Parts: sequence; structure tokens; C-alpha cells
Amino acid sequence: MLQPNQLAELDAFLVELNRASSAVILPLFRGDHGLEDKGGPQGFDPVTEADRGAEAAIRKLIAERHPEHGVIGEEYGEDRPDAEFVWVLDPVDGTRAFVGGLPLWTTLIGLRFQGRPVLGSIGQPYLGELYIGSAAGSRLMTRGSSQPLKTRPCPDFSRAIIATTDPEACFNPAERQAWRDLRKATRLARLGCDAYAYAMVAAGTMDVVVESGLKSWDVEAAMPVIEGAGGFHSDWKGQPIGQSGGTMVLAGDRAALDATVAITGLA
Amino acid sequence: MLQPNQLAELDAFLVELNRASSAVILPLFRGDHGLEDKGGPQGFDPVTEADRGAEAAIRKLIAERHPEHGVIGEEYGEDRPDAEFVWVLDPVDGTRAFVGGLPLWTTLIGLRFQGRPVLGSIGQPYLGELYIGSAAGSRLMTRGSSQPLKTRPCPDFSRAIIATTDPEACFNPAERQAWRDLRKATRLARLGCDAYAYAMVAAGTMDVVVESGLKSWDVEAAMPVIEGAGGFHSDWKGQPIGQSGGTMVLAGDRAALDATVAITGLA
Repeated sequence: MLQPNQLAELDAFLVELNRASSAVILPLFRGDHGLEDKGGPQGFDPVTEADRGAEAAIRKLIAERHPEHGVIGEEYGEDRPDAEFVWVLDPVDGTRAFVGGLPLWTTLIGLRFQGRPVLGSIGQPYLGELYIGSAAGSRLMTRGSSQPLKTRPCPDFSRAIIATTDPEACFNPAERQAWRDLRKATRLARLGCDAYAYAMVAAGTMDVVVESGLKSWDVEAAMPVIEGAGGFHSDWKGQPIGQSGGTMVLAGDRAALDATVAITGLA
Repeated sequence: MLQPNQLAELDAFLVELNRASSAVILPLFRGDHGLEDKGGPQGFDPVTEADRGAEAAIRKLIAERHPEHGVIGEEYGEDRPDAEFVWVLDPVDGTRAFVGGLPLWTTLIGLRFQGRPVLGSIGQPYLGELYIGSAAGSRLMTRGSSQPLKTRPCPDFSRAIIATTDPEACFNPAERQAWRDLRKATRLARLGCDAYAYAMVAAGTMDVVVESGLKSWDVEAAMPVIEGAGGFHSDWKGQPIGQSGGTMVLAGDRAALDATVAITGLA
């Protein structure tokens, strides 16, 4: 069991990791970021010096301060993935947004304790926003202030605001059909937000996000933030995330999660 | 012919209009913005106190300072639309983004002189960004600094970054096919940006934006900003914007505009 004082210390360290990551990324945003394509024949998969430099900076700090902790990151693989504490990182989630100059890429850093995500953050340094939390509570740190995060109730699913990033590129045909059905069942859909939409659910301005094809570093950071804000998550079948091929539903309200899964479960 | 000193004065007034608009909108962003649906049976069409309050504030300033100028706005209709100078406004373009808490809505204000768009701005007050310009030159005013805007060359269309807001909701079947063809011809597509993508073309981080179903207030503000940054615009057939039903292509490079129109012209 993680002790409150231990959690507080790790939370402060997480803020520090975000600061170190942002110091690498921000000077490269809208600048000469050294775009490369690591995708090969399967399709374009961009990576930049921001992704690599920030992940290296975060790993260095973890190695100095907590050498016994494990790390799993998008660019540099796994170190001690079975350690009691494991950091799960994607310093520039939404590299496509980043290279397009759009300020909706995010820095995702999560912490696993004994295999379970317990602490996480969604940072957007250009906006000066850090959404951070654990089951004990989540908050938005921005422009010198800190305010509690609270998901909103969604008593009427037909008025929900939903989001996904790119149905044409990320979903298979059955998933695209589920997305179209979700759009019909709800009021307003937004595209192109990547993990920034997770933060909007935590902040109570959106109701539901659905994604597919996710890796652990795309989602683990968000799970404690959503829980601490009073929200819910599952995969598209309503099972714990990670059990059916990288699908994910985040919702601010239990009934909205259930209404979503009633549709996505058919995909 | 508009004189340089006249243009400079109107440019300063445009900055002032953006300041007045932002003072109304920002306190309502992510707050109690009084969302209403003006769409009726045809579908959800959101409007908020931010749209109405900001448009009223801008109209009041124009009426005080330039009572002879015309105004065309999304919420309050047309006043003197045939005046020599006509302001064309949409204080919250991307109301859907606004109500979802996403900081990519923009304030669009354009000025027509003798029927032709000559000055415009794309503002994002939450980010503290104002993209502003005329054929004489465009700049980004942000965080106390002002920097010139310059579109980028796109010598290889297969590496272009393209954007549109929502193909499922905004395009008819032929337009959706054109969008899919554009995606195939280029490298990276982004969705959900509304007019913020116009600013990215002006800033040289994206190459092409295509939209359909636009009204004058959705696009006129962007045209001088794009021109002043060295970019190009037309409708989907390659004709001047406004001649074929609200379609628009913005491109940073002439060849990218032509390559786009070769595809969109078939829709």
C-alpha cells in the first residue's frame, strides 16, 4: 500500500519531471525540431528531437533520484519493467499536432505501483497547464494557481460532448461504425485532440473520449487523473483497459461510460 | 486606394477590437457561458453569451469610432453592408471547441474596403496569440512580442501537412471523397482545428487547409493574413472564394494550392 507521504513526494517529483521535459520541448515547438519518419512502409510515424530529448531528460532525472524505479517509454523502450515503481512516459503525445504547430500535444507521465497506475499527469507546457492527480484527488496547475479537477455529471447522454482523434486513420471499419453510432447518440463531437481530450474530461468540459490502438504510454498517465477527478475508464468492452487491444473509453460519469460501452462493445 | 497611414490606423483599431472581444470571452471560457441551441430540427448549432457579448462589444466600438462603417456578423446580422468599409465578424469561430473547453476557437475579424478583404485577424486570447495582417505583411503578436508571419514552401506535395475540421459533419459525399484523396496524396492530416488551422498556414507550420460550407465571417478575416504571409487562397474549383458555395482552400505555397485544387475541383 502506497503511503500518503510517499505519494506526496512522488507527486512533487512528477511536477519536477514535467518541468524538465518542458525545458527540452518548448524551444523546439514551432522551430527546428528535426522531424524524422520512423514508420517505414507501413505509413508515416513522426518522431522529433523533442520526443527523444525530453524522454532522455526524464529518464536521467529518474535514474538519479530513484535508480530502483523502472521506466517504459515510447522512444527508448523498457528498463526494469517489473520494478515495484515503474514510470510510463510519452513526452510528446500527439507528435502530429506538434509538427503541425498545434498546441494540443501533451506530455504524458504515469506511475505504476505494484503493476497498477496510481499517479499521472497530462501536461501542455505551451499553454502552461498541468493536469495531475491520483485516486486521492486531481488538480489543474496553471499560471501560478492550482484548482481541483472535477468531472461533470452527464444525466442525458443525448447531450454529451464526445471526442476522438482521427476515425479515418485510427479505427477499423467496425470501430468507425461504432464512432458514427456514438455521434448519432450524442450532441457534439470533437476530433483531433489526442490526449488533451482526456484532460477536458477530467476538467468537466467534455463527457466521453474513445480511442483505439493505444499503447500503455498513451493512456496510463490519464487513468489516475480521471479517477481523482471522479471519472471512469474501461476498454470498449467495458473491461479494464489493456485487456482488448488498446481500446479505451474515458468518461466523467458512470452512466455515460455505460452508454458508450453499450455502443463500442458491438465493434 | 487605401493609404498606408489609413491602413496603420485601422490595424491599430483592429488590435483594440480584439482586446475588447477577449475581455468579454475569456471570463466565460470553461465557465458558465449560457450555451443555447439555435439549430432547431436541422441539428445542433450552439451559441453562447460569449458569441453574443463579444459581437455586441465589437459593434459598439465600431459604432463609436467609425459610425459610417458597415458590419456583418454571425449573431446580429448586417448593418450598412454596402458601405465603403465593412467589418466582417465572428468573435467565437469554433463555438463547438469553445463549449468543449478546447483552446482552439478563434476570434475572426476582417475588414472589407470597396468590397475586397484588405485587413484581418485571427485571435486566440486564451493562448495570447493574435495573427494579424494585410497584403502589406502579416505578423503574430504574442506574449509581448511581434514576429513576422511567413508561409513555408511546399516543394513536395506528398510531404504536405493538411487540415480540415470535421469531414463527417461538414462535407457532402463528393467532398468526403476529395478529402480522402487529399489524405492519400499528402503526408499528415489534422482534424478539429477550425480557423486556428488558417493561422498555422500563415505561420508556416501547415501547408493546406480545406473547408466547405463557410460563411463570409468564417473566412474573410483570414484572407489578408494569408496573403500578407505569402500564401494563397481560392475555392475548391480554383476560383475566388465566395463564388462556389462556401468552399475554401488556403495554402502556403502556390504549387500546393494548385495540387489541392486538382483534387478538390473534382468534388
